Amino acid sequence: MVIGLDAGGTKLLGASLDEGLELGPRVRHTWAGEGRDATLEVIARAVEDIRAQAGDVEAVGLGVPSLVDWDDGVSRWSNHLPLDDLPLRDLMTERLGLPVVVDNDGNLAVLAEHREGAARDSSNAVFLAMGTGIGGGLVLDGKVYRGSHGYAGEFGHMVVDHDGADCPGACPGRGCLEALASGRAIGVAGERAARDAPDSALGRRLAESGAVLGQVVTELAHEGDAAARAVLADVGRRLGAGLTGIVNALDPDVVVIGGGAVTAGDLLLDPAREVVAARALPPVARAVRIVPARFGEEAGLLGAGLLARELL
Amino acid sequence: MVIGLDAGGTKLLGASLDEGLELGPRVRHTWAGEGRDATLEVIARAVEDIRAQAGDVEAVGLGVPSLVDWDDGVSRWSNHLPLDDLPLRDLMTERLGLPVVVDNDGNLAVLAEHREGAARDSSNAVFLAMGTGIGGGLVLDGKVYRGSHGYAGEFGHMVVDHDGADCPGACPGRGCLEALASGRAIGVAGERAARDAPDSALGRRLAESGAVLGQVVTELAHEGDAAARAVLADVGRRLGAGLTGIVNALDPDVVVIGGGAVTAGDLLLDPAREVVAARALPPVARAVRIVPARFGEEAGLLGAGLLARELL
Repeated sequence: MVIGLDAGGTKLLGASLDEGLELGPRVRHTWAGEGRDATLEVIARAVEDIRAQAGDVEAVGLGVPSLVDWDDGVSRWSNHLPLDDLPLRDLMTERLGLPVVVDNDGNLAVLAEHREGAARDSSNAVFLAMGTGIGGGLVLDGKVYRGSHGYAGEFGHMVVDHDGADCPGACPGRGCLEALASGRAIGVAGERAARDAPDSALGRRLAESGAVLGQVVTELAHEGDAAARAVLADVGRRLGAGLTGIVNALDPDVVVIGGGAVTAGDLLLDPAREVVAARALPPVARAVRIVPARFGEEAGLLGAGLLARELL
Repeated sequence: MVIGLDAGGTKLLGASLDEGLELGPRVRHTWAGEGRDATLEVIARAVEDIRAQAGDVEAVGLGVPSLVDWDDGVSRWSNHLPLDDLPLRDLMTERLGLPVVVDNDGNLAVLAEHREGAARDSSNAVFLAMGTGIGGGLVLDGKVYRGSHGYAGEFGHMVVDHDGADCPGACPGRGCLEALASGRAIGVAGERAARDAPDSALGRRLAESGAVLGQVVTELAHEGDAAARAVLADVGRRLGAGLTGIVNALDPDVVVIGGGAVTAGDLLLDPAREVVAARALPPVARAVRIVPARFGEEAGLLGAGLLARELL
């Protein structure tokens, strides 16, 4: 038995994972702006809670929304949690008295999708998690590719608008894919569209609630609102421009799109596919598949458990 | 003894390569718009000419500016030579009566830089060849990474301006790095700068000769012309925007810039380095080196020879 934990930007999810790759009861904590010590306390308590139920636990896998030094398990830089320059693996190993492995959450999600999900049977897979931001991970030649230090897979911070606006959050970049095609970007574009079309369902929702989030755009698009559909198509085309560069550079078998925004389904992915078909180098465009993830918010959790099993 | 050949967009270069990795006398042919049969004839004749001088040749490595199916040696799509959907490896093997290996020219150049050049001692290296267009290659975990079909490494066709202008040449993309930061892009920007500053050395050169090529911009920049230097700095910053995305995605040890445009040296590379330092995720930016290639126009030729040796 092992434990997988995924400490995302908004919440922590944890569960045990048995030999049959079945996840046990979930533990969940929504972050409330905890500082560093309290964050570590929440993580440690989640492990102890799961352990109390699961019995004989041999290792812990922990995902964080950070650039993680793969060699020494130091969380080097985080866009979302107060974990900069923190020897997270060693701290947790000591605190829990168990072997702990720490990895970037996107690396864990691509591991789960490759072993058990939408990238199964592929040699080379690109994974993008479109949540509030865009995380990512990469499987090359059947293994998670982490780069020279552990920082690889940050497809959200590929520049797709070289002279573009500042990337939201702590990223010092401009014109990053995350600024143009994340869940947050769907909300921003949705609010603009709602103002432009006050009689649309999107416009009425803005008038009622004073704001439009990405998930509202998706919901109204599924209900058939033309303004909301146009927003998803626009963001999908921007995503497609980013994917065009990625597939030309990496020639993967498959691109897997996960994260909350993928509930938009083909309303988002078809425009992205059309752009890749039209703009990528023809043999690359013909060969690559662009598919939704199998796992939703639990991809990182499962990947963390799988990595803990590999550690043993 | 093996033979290496590099059939680039403008010329063919060939030479023998001995066990000490010494290249023999060079054979060179400048393309004059030959059709498919004549192109193959030029390649075959180059091999025979080298063989006549070199004696006992055991294998041939051939680089082409094409997407090459790695499994079967078919040149699938070429931006520069009439080699689309051509079983180049099998045709040449039969014609020459020697084992032949065919690869994309950027893959061969990165092989040469990794084994013997600027990427030596690195695990993960990105290579960009800034010539008329932008070619590229990738070494990951110490080996050339070719992707799922053999098409990887086309960094020139990463989208850095998602709503940008058509990519020149046969690429169906828009806003590709090649459109913004190739040798040709230096010429285009140089001509615009020459018009804007008719009293600069660049402006006078345009008035004299009616056109400005990338290499003229570089030459005048080295002589101190401020207008020419500003052009290289601009193009260098665009290159830096593209590199920012590449290093965030791949976390390489080193980025090697080759091709004709790199004669601009730090006038081009320093602005690129500054953009990466300012805009890439901080731990990635701190860790990566951006260096000029060791080999100039002979990188592909040497790589072709090295690959032929590996074939044996």
